[in-house]
Amino acid sequence: MFDGLSAFPLTPMDGESVDLKSLGKLVSRAAEAGADSLGVLGSTGNYAYLSREERRTVLETAVGAANGVPVLAGVGAVRTRDVLAHAGDAHSAGASALLLAPVSYQKLSDAEVFGLFETVASESDLPVVVYDNPGTTGFSFSDDLLARIARIPGVASIKIPPPPSGEVAARISKLKPGLPEQVSLGISGDWVAAEALLAGCNVWYSVIAGVLPRHARTLVDHAIAGRRDLALADSEALEPLWSLFRTYGSLRVTAALAEDLGVVPSSALPLPLRGLDSRGREKVAEAIGQCNLEA
Amino acid sequence: MFDGLSAFPLTPMDGESVDLKSLGKLVSRAAEAGADSLGVLGSTGNYAYLSREERRTVLETAVGAANGVPVLAGVGAVRTRDVLAHAGDAHSAGASALLLAPVSYQKLSDAEVFGLFETVASESDLPVVVYDNPGTTGFSFSDDLLARIARIPGVASIKIPPPPSGEVAARISKLKPGLPEQVSLGISGDWVAAEALLAGCNVWYSVIAGVLPRHARTLVDHAIAGRRDLALADSEALEPLWSLFRTYGSLRVTAALAEDLGVVPSSALPLPLRGLDSRGREKVAEAIGQCNLEA
Repeated sequence: MFDGLSAFPLTPMDGESVDLKSLGKLVSRAAEAGADSLGVLGSTGNYAYLSREERRTVLETAVGAANGVPVLAGVGAVRTRDVLAHAGDAHSAGASALLLAPVSYQKLSDAEVFGLFETVASESDLPVVVYDNPGTTGFSFSDDLLARIARIPGVASIKIPPPPSGEVAARISKLKPGLPEQVSLGISGDWVAAEALLAGCNVWYSVIAGVLPRHARTLVDHAIAGRRDLALADSEALEPLWSLFRTYGSLRVTAALAEDLGVVPSSALPLPLRGLDSRGREKVAEAIGQCNLEA
Repeated sequence: MFDGLSAFPLTPMDGESVDLKSLGKLVSRAAEAGADSLGVLGSTGNYAYLSREERRTVLETAVGAANGVPVLAGVGAVRTRDVLAHAGDAHSAGASALLLAPVSYQKLSDAEVFGLFETVASESDLPVVVYDNPGTTGFSFSDDLLARIARIPGVASIKIPPPPSGEVAARISKLKPGLPEQVSLGISGDWVAAEALLAGCNVWYSVIAGVLPRHARTLVDHAIAGRRDLALADSEALEPLWSLFRTYGSLRVTAALAEDLGVVPSSALPLPLRGLDSRGREKVAEAIGQCNLEA
């Protein structure tokens, strides 16, 4: 479950409500295209903006549409009490694992973050994916803390943010030996995914696979089979998109992309978030042309 | 309402529940000591960790205990929909103003933050205090954005974070001329409060005034009357505390201080937050001695 391709679909919005029908379609498309797992309610899935009830409904819809492909459920919240409530809901909804980021308001200490993972891993029967995303959570893991958390029973995978270009292989060779063998290492930041998989990452926690699952599947298959040049070429072919991800953030670009390709009816985000401005939308349309993309 | 001393009480916890009785006592102590307003559910009041229901109960309790002193209600949340719900609850509970920070998960753009303040100011009848706290929200206001938001009808005050030591007066002379005259400028970061009030800030949004309201009132009275040396001496007398604020953060230090002085029965914070470790607690006890503090 923590290897290969994990597709992170958007949670499409219809105004201020979740568009469950479009969500179900995104999930079944990714499952049919061969995703090994589905990361529902990740950052791309807007988990931080949704109520408990909305999050529960999203998970139920996703599990129903996933056709047996395991669903990893984002359960992050600033308060441990709420994380545990989300974890219970994820279990009831039929999710297969928890994805947990140390979302913060007050700056968290290492001891506080360790305690959070220890509590959640011991109170839930589901395996836990550690979600390291300093840009959204405000918390930066040290390698030592990641290694200590990876040893907590129940922790199954670590999802890391993209290292700077040119430092991907070095980052992974530094981090991986410190992790227990049974804990998988996963990469976020789609533009470095091919490089990271070739350098020993076990799984790509992929934003683009929520919209273009077949493209992502092909890239992963090449990387797993050691077809280095083909994997890198697949990634290079999407560079116009990656460039927009780095400039505008993957959420806003992916939302616009999904709408332009007709995969979702609306690319609205929950306010105060707004989609790309008109210049950004033009660039997405250009990238679609440059990459010859179809849904 | 947006001048003088605004006291920001803790929201004391009893395990994972809000200790409403202790909250009421903190509020009435500050009101009796002459606070001009009460900032309830600020960062010190743990607003970001509480449910809507908890926040509503806290506000009702605070307004009941404030004996007519205006209550500013923290209404921040990552989603505009939730901010508006909190604003409605604040109005119903009898709060006099809203305190709004652009709490974020995805990084917010200037346009998104402007839009948030525009929406809240136009949909609520209560005046709005702009709460600039990049350390907790992850969003940094430019001076230009603050000036533009200050011109939105309904915006009444700006609460700024502490400038670096030695730059307080310069910061305030730079910012203030860009603000409309009717918009007050308030300082956070208790260790620079005296300097900031002397340099032209209208109000001290004060953490320590939640626990030591008489100390804070005296300092403000000296500053307002232009008794520069006395105001600075009052601040200097609390330097052992300020030093701990800068090292450990004001929330954790104030919680420990309130417990040590017997003002609250417990200094517990909502998990995953933990209080000071034993070394930090020792330092708070030392500071209480050095400053000759009594409740």
